[in-house]
Amino acid sequence: MKIALDAMGGDFGPPNLVAGAVMALRDYPQIDKLYLVGDTGKIEAELKTKACSDPRIEIVHSTQVVEMSDGAVESVRRKKDSSVSRAVDLVKRGAADAIVSAGHTGAAVAATTIKLRTLPGIDRPGIAALIPSETNVFVLIDAGANSDARADHLLQYAIMGSVYSRHVLGYENPEIGLMSIGGEDVKGTDLTKEVFKMLRDSSLNFRGNVEGHDLFAHPVEVVVCDGFVGNVILKTCESVGDAIFKWLKHELVKSKVRMAGAYLAQGAFRAIKKRVNYEEYGGSVLLGVNGICIIAHGASTPLAIKNALRVAAESIEHEVNPHIIEEVRRYHETTAQLEPAIR
Amino acid sequence: MKIALDAMGGDFGPPNLVAGAVMALRDYPQIDKLYLVGDTGKIEAELKTKACSDPRIEIVHSTQVVEMSDGAVESVRRKKDSSVSRAVDLVKRGAADAIVSAGHTGAAVAATTIKLRTLPGIDRPGIAALIPSETNVFVLIDAGANSDARADHLLQYAIMGSVYSRHVLGYENPEIGLMSIGGEDVKGTDLTKEVFKMLRDSSLNFRGNVEGHDLFAHPVEVVVCDGFVGNVILKTCESVGDAIFKWLKHELVKSKVRMAGAYLAQGAFRAIKKRVNYEEYGGSVLLGVNGICIIAHGASTPLAIKNALRVAAESIEHEVNPHIIEEVRRYHETTAQLEPAIR
Repeated sequence: MKIALDAMGGDFGPPNLVAGAVMALRDYPQIDKLYLVGDTGKIEAELKTKACSDPRIEIVHSTQVVEMSDGAVESVRRKKDSSVSRAVDLVKRGAADAIVSAGHTGAAVAATTIKLRTLPGIDRPGIAALIPSETNVFVLIDAGANSDARADHLLQYAIMGSVYSRHVLGYENPEIGLMSIGGEDVKGTDLTKEVFKMLRDSSLNFRGNVEGHDLFAHPVEVVVCDGFVGNVILKTCESVGDAIFKWLKHELVKSKVRMAGAYLAQGAFRAIKKRVNYEEYGGSVLLGVNGICIIAHGASTPLAIKNALRVAAESIEHEVNPHIIEEVRRYHETTAQLEPAIR
Repeated sequence: MKIALDAMGGDFGPPNLVAGAVMALRDYPQIDKLYLVGDTGKIEAELKTKACSDPRIEIVHSTQVVEMSDGAVESVRRKKDSSVSRAVDLVKRGAADAIVSAGHTGAAVAATTIKLRTLPGIDRPGIAALIPSETNVFVLIDAGANSDARADHLLQYAIMGSVYSRHVLGYENPEIGLMSIGGEDVKGTDLTKEVFKMLRDSSLNFRGNVEGHDLFAHPVEVVVCDGFVGNVILKTCESVGDAIFKWLKHELVKSKVRMAGAYLAQGAFRAIKKRVNYEEYGGSVLLGVNGICIIAHGASTPLAIKNALRVAAESIEHEVNPHIIEEVRRYHETTAQLEPAIR
């Protein structure tokens, strides 16, 4: 398989990205070719510091980088030679099977949507983020691709999240929850009330509304929401986790007795930290585009980039897109004949 | 001061509510009268188990209770003798200064808004929840009163949150952040982009967009968002905190060495748990109604109810509503003359 890495995007630029690429090539022999897209000079310099001359690497030069202050759609039109656009071009012309970017999320979404188009029956792609609970790993979709979503977009997210949970995560009959602010179907916004009815009337395994309280206490396998809410949830989860560990650390160094206790219990802290560490999950899949695109964390470490490349490889192996097309078609044949929702 | 407690609402009904009331009367001598509104028989039975015959208590009988499956506005129209409606009536006719309810949030918001009306210049009330960060306590507004908000509602939340932060929490010049999904003003929904401009052009101390990442790492004193997003944030924070402590507990009992460590470090765990315990904060103030209404957690313990009554007493003492009216008037005189935003 062939993967294109945007080697310029992300808070830390080429150093972390190239280091992650080198780690991935070492660990994943199934990668036949890895395109590193960006400034050739900078990429070559990083490869040199890693003493890496893996023949599977091919540098694709590009002269522009999308900045965080750039508009998403504008970036595609105005920066035609950006690293993310050039990486998507490789997928478009069949040279690569997937793209990985840790840069401007909106730009990656816009470039893939404009250049690769969406899958049949899908109006808008959605980011599927993986979040660990105590008993499962759930898909949060949409985690930030589409912040002004309509009801049929959310229905499509439910279908795509369900496919991903089944075919990639291995849950046999993933349960779907609609993020709202009350368990009852009378609670929520006009949007969530409409989506509630659509999901209830579908053949999907729909539990009903879920609230923030339920995310970890009564987890479902797929949580559906618009991209604004999903992005807020994802970042809030990370922020709360970081804050609690930071507070705990401050408290634990306040006395010698507590420090001794922390030393004895360190295995427990390490286990939890590993479990909640986003670096282990690597990247989120942008579902619904006609190609495979992995969105990595802007602050990705080399380990996170390595794992984002693993997620790309898994998505290629599990043929997620053909399964989504099939599932949307099945929805059309069953539910949609009664109540047309996807156009 | 006189406070009316909805003695029926909440997941655990009269037992927790009456127990909290008894605790509050013991600790807060400034409460001259506490109305317990609900089923007289049940309330009297609970008072009996507490051996409480405080003369400041007055039971106000009501025959109905709003259920979680009831619609918010419908509950006010159809259940005229509900405990929450009767409690609001006491404020309306001047018998009480504030109401506290742990029941159906939407019903409490609807009853106060319909019966007491909003303050001059305020279109919709917003729930101001208090959340602790490492360096401050911030106001999250709206935490769930109004889930289909318009831009001018969010501007009004910013003004009210700022007043509350200054006059009740004591921050001299509270900084305001607009919850969005990117630090740049080009990120977010149509709604947040419009509110961004209104806040930037106001005389408020506006930092700009904040993301989930910033909530605890770079906290502002006031976080502004619509009620759907705010409710999701509030409940997600609680859920993540609970989950981490639960996982930690499971990990800590896995070996004798870890258990010994946990024993030595227990002071640190207790300090954090106290800091993140919602019971200590008690209740959230519904800002913007012409009266004082405190929304307590549905699962309130007696301690949480006691603290919700404390929050009511503080709101009465600090004269929050006159300050809000004054601040809205000042906004009209300065910013709004240039660009009318509040109608």
